[in-house]
Amino acid sequence: MAEIDATALGLRAEGMIKTLAAISAEPDRLVRLFLTPEHRRAADLVAQWMRAAGLTVSEDALGTVRGRVGEGPRLLIGSHIDTVIDAGQYDGPFGVIAGILATGHFGGKPPVPIDVLAFGDEEGSRFPSTLSTSAACVGAFEADTLTFADRDGVTFGDALKAYGKNPADIAKAAYQPGETLGYVEVHIEQGPLLEVEDQALGVVTGIVGQSRFRVTVTGEAGHAGTVPMRLRRDALAGAAEMTLLTERIGRGEPDMVATVGRLDVSPGATNIIPAKVVFTVDLRCMNDAARKAAIEEFEREARQIAKVRKLDIGIEHFHAVNAVPCDARLQDTLASAIGSNNVRRLPSGAGHDAQMMARLCPSAMMFVRCKGGISHNPAEYTSPADMGLAIAALIRFIERFRAPS
Amino acid sequence: MAEIDATALGLRAEGMIKTLAAISAEPDRLVRLFLTPEHRRAADLVAQWMRAAGLTVSEDALGTVRGRVGEGPRLLIGSHIDTVIDAGQYDGPFGVIAGILATGHFGGKPPVPIDVLAFGDEEGSRFPSTLSTSAACVGAFEADTLTFADRDGVTFGDALKAYGKNPADIAKAAYQPGETLGYVEVHIEQGPLLEVEDQALGVVTGIVGQSRFRVTVTGEAGHAGTVPMRLRRDALAGAAEMTLLTERIGRGEPDMVATVGRLDVSPGATNIIPAKVVFTVDLRCMNDAARKAAIEEFEREARQIAKVRKLDIGIEHFHAVNAVPCDARLQDTLASAIGSNNVRRLPSGAGHDAQMMARLCPSAMMFVRCKGGISHNPAEYTSPADMGLAIAALIRFIERFRAPS
Repeated sequence: MAEIDATALGLRAEGMIKTLAAISAEPDRLVRLFLTPEHRRAADLVAQWMRAAGLTVSEDALGTVRGRVGEGPRLLIGSHIDTVIDAGQYDGPFGVIAGILATGHFGGKPPVPIDVLAFGDEEGSRFPSTLSTSAACVGAFEADTLTFADRDGVTFGDALKAYGKNPADIAKAAYQPGETLGYVEVHIEQGPLLEVEDQALGVVTGIVGQSRFRVTVTGEAGHAGTVPMRLRRDALAGAAEMTLLTERIGRGEPDMVATVGRLDVSPGATNIIPAKVVFTVDLRCMNDAARKAAIEEFEREARQIAKVRKLDIGIEHFHAVNAVPCDARLQDTLASAIGSNNVRRLPSGAGHDAQMMARLCPSAMMFVRCKGGISHNPAEYTSPADMGLAIAALIRFIERFRAPS
Repeated sequence: MAEIDATALGLRAEGMIKTLAAISAEPDRLVRLFLTPEHRRAADLVAQWMRAAGLTVSEDALGTVRGRVGEGPRLLIGSHIDTVIDAGQYDGPFGVIAGILATGHFGGKPPVPIDVLAFGDEEGSRFPSTLSTSAACVGAFEADTLTFADRDGVTFGDALKAYGKNPADIAKAAYQPGETLGYVEVHIEQGPLLEVEDQALGVVTGIVGQSRFRVTVTGEAGHAGTVPMRLRRDALAGAAEMTLLTERIGRGEPDMVATVGRLDVSPGATNIIPAKVVFTVDLRCMNDAARKAAIEEFEREARQIAKVRKLDIGIEHFHAVNAVPCDARLQDTLASAIGSNNVRRLPSGAGHDAQMMARLCPSAMMFVRCKGGISHNPAEYTSPADMGLAIAALIRFIERFRAPS
C-alpha cells in the first residue's frame, strides 16, 4: 500500500473542490440546490470520481450517490453536495472528496468494506426539510416531506420524480440492521476554535442540542419628548435587558452558546418610544439538561424584567432538538488517527448528517480548521495543507477502524 | 361682557374640532398637509370662524391665516392647522379654535388688540421644513426652504405659487418691532403628566432642547452555533448595553428624557451573530448644559462598552436645538388665569410654533390634558370639559394680560 502523501492529497482535494464549485445555478455565486440540474451534474461528477477510485456507484431513491467497495458489513463515510445560497466551496463537498480520496488510497482493497455517501439535502436550502437524504438511509424519512414545496411551489415529491426517482423506492434506501459498522464524516469546522488554538484538525464530541424561541415584548408607544422616563413602558429597553440576559446565560455554561440574532422594533421611529419588540433566541449546548435549565432561567428572569418594567411578554418555542453525542470509541480512533498529543475535542454547533446517521450506527466526525471560522459565505476557506492532513488522518482512521464488539 | 361659560365653550370647540377634522386628503384618516387643497379648505373655514368672532381676516405670503381685532401693539394667539399623516384631531387645531373663541368672547372689544394666527407648517409632514410659517412671522424664514421638495418632487416654492402666493412677499409676513406684545399658544399636552397628576391644565416652562444622533456599532458576523461566547464580537449585545446606558442617562436628570427609538440589526437572522447595529438616540432637556453633559457621558461610556467588547463605534450627530424658555411673567399670568393653587408647570418635550415666536416677543404656552398622553394618532382625545376650562383660562389670561414694561 502506498505511503500517505498528505501534501499531494490536499492539492488533489483542492482541485476537485474547484471543479465541483464550478457547478452552480448562477454564474456569479455558488448555488447548488437539491434535485436541480446542478445537483444532477454534481452527482455525476462525484460518481465519476468514485469510479476512478475503484468504487462501484449507485444512487438511492433520493439521489444520494453511493460508492461501494468490499463485501459485508461496512464503514460509511459521507457528507453532502448541496449548498446554501451564495455558498462557500468547502462545506459538504470536502467531506465527500475526503471520503473518495481516502478510500481510493487503498486501491480497491480497503481493510474494511466502505460506502462513500454524497447526500443531497443537508442544508435544507430548497425545501423546508433538512437531513432528508440521510434520514432515508437510516429509514427515518418522513412521508409528509414529499408534500413540502419550494419557493416556486414545486413539491419535494414532484421534484424527485422530475429527477428520475420513484418515491415508492425511498424505503429501499435504508440500510438494513447488520449492514453498517459505523459512520464517519469529515467537515470544515465552520467556527473559529481550531484556528484560534492553532490546530489543523479536531474530533467532534457531538452535535449540540438546540432550542429556538421568539420573545415578544409589548410596552406602550409614546412621544420621545413628552413621556417622562418614570411613566414609560419602553419595549426596547426591556428587550435590551433580555438580550444581555441571553448573553449572560450563554457565558454561564461551558460549550453553551446563546444568541439574539433578530430583533425588530415597532414602530421604529427616532422620536417614538418603542411599543413592541420581537426577538429570537438561539441556545445550543452539548448538555441537554443544561440547555433546558438555561431556558428556564431565561424565562424566569425575562418575566421578572418584564414585570418590573410593566411590560407584557410572550415566549414562543419553535424549534428544539436534543444533542447527539458522537460515539466515544470512534472519537478515540479518530484522535489516534490524527495523532498529535491532546487532540482538540469540540462540539459541533451546527447540524450535520452525522446526527441523523447516529440513529443507525456508531457515528463520528472530524473537523478541519477553516479561515476565520467563516462559512456559508464565498469567503469560506480551508487550506490544501489542512485538507491533506485531514485526508491522511481519515486514511489512518480506516486502517485502525475496528467493528464494534 | 358675558360671563364665561366654560362648558358651552368646550362644546363649541368640540363641534369645531370635528368640522375641521372632516377636511382631509384621505377618507379614512386625517391627513392635512401644508399648501394642499385641504390646507386651503381648512384655512377658509378658520377664516369664516374668525369673521364670525368679529375678527378681520387676512393671509400672509405663506398662507398663515390672521384674524385681527383692535389697533396698535398686540397680543398674538396662535397654533397650526396642518397635521401629521394619520393624525389626531386636536394637535394644533384646538389652539387656533381656542384663540378664536376666547377672542370672540370679547365681542370685538378685547382689552388688548389681538391677532389670532393659524399657521400651516408646524408638523413638517410635507416638506423637510418645520415652523416655516411662524418663522416668516418673526422674519426668520430661510430662503433655501423654497427649494425643499416633497415626496412627489414638488418644491416648497412651486407649491406656494400653486397656492396663490408670491414668494417675494414672504418678507412682508414679518411683524415689525413694536407691533407685538406677546405670544400665547394653547395646545394639548401630547404627554401623560397632567392626566397622571389629575390636572386639566398646565403652564409650559419652555420647549426643551433636543439632540439626536445615530450610533453605528460594528462587530463580526458568525454562526450562532459555532462561535464560542468568548470569541464573539456581537454588535447587538453591545448596542443593548448602550440602550440601557441611554435609559440610565435619561433617568439621571429631572426633566430629561432619552430614547432609543430605532434599532436595526444586520444581518438579522436567528442563527447569525449580529455584525452591525444602527440605532438612534433622542435626548431632550430644558437644561442645555445638562443635555450636553449627558451627550458627553453617553459618548464616553458607549466608547468604553465598545472597547471592552472589541466593537467599532461611530456616532453621527444629526440634529441639535437649544431649549427655549417661556417668558416668566407670561407664565405667571397664565398660572393666575388657570386659577387653581399650585398650577402644574411642565416643559414641552415636543416642538411648537411658540419656540419660534419667542424670537419676536415674550411667549408662553398653556397645555391641556389629553387622554393617555396619546398624540399623532387617531386616538388622540381631549374632553370638551377640559377644552372649556382651557378657553376660559385663555379668556382670563387676555383680561389679565399686561404689556411688558
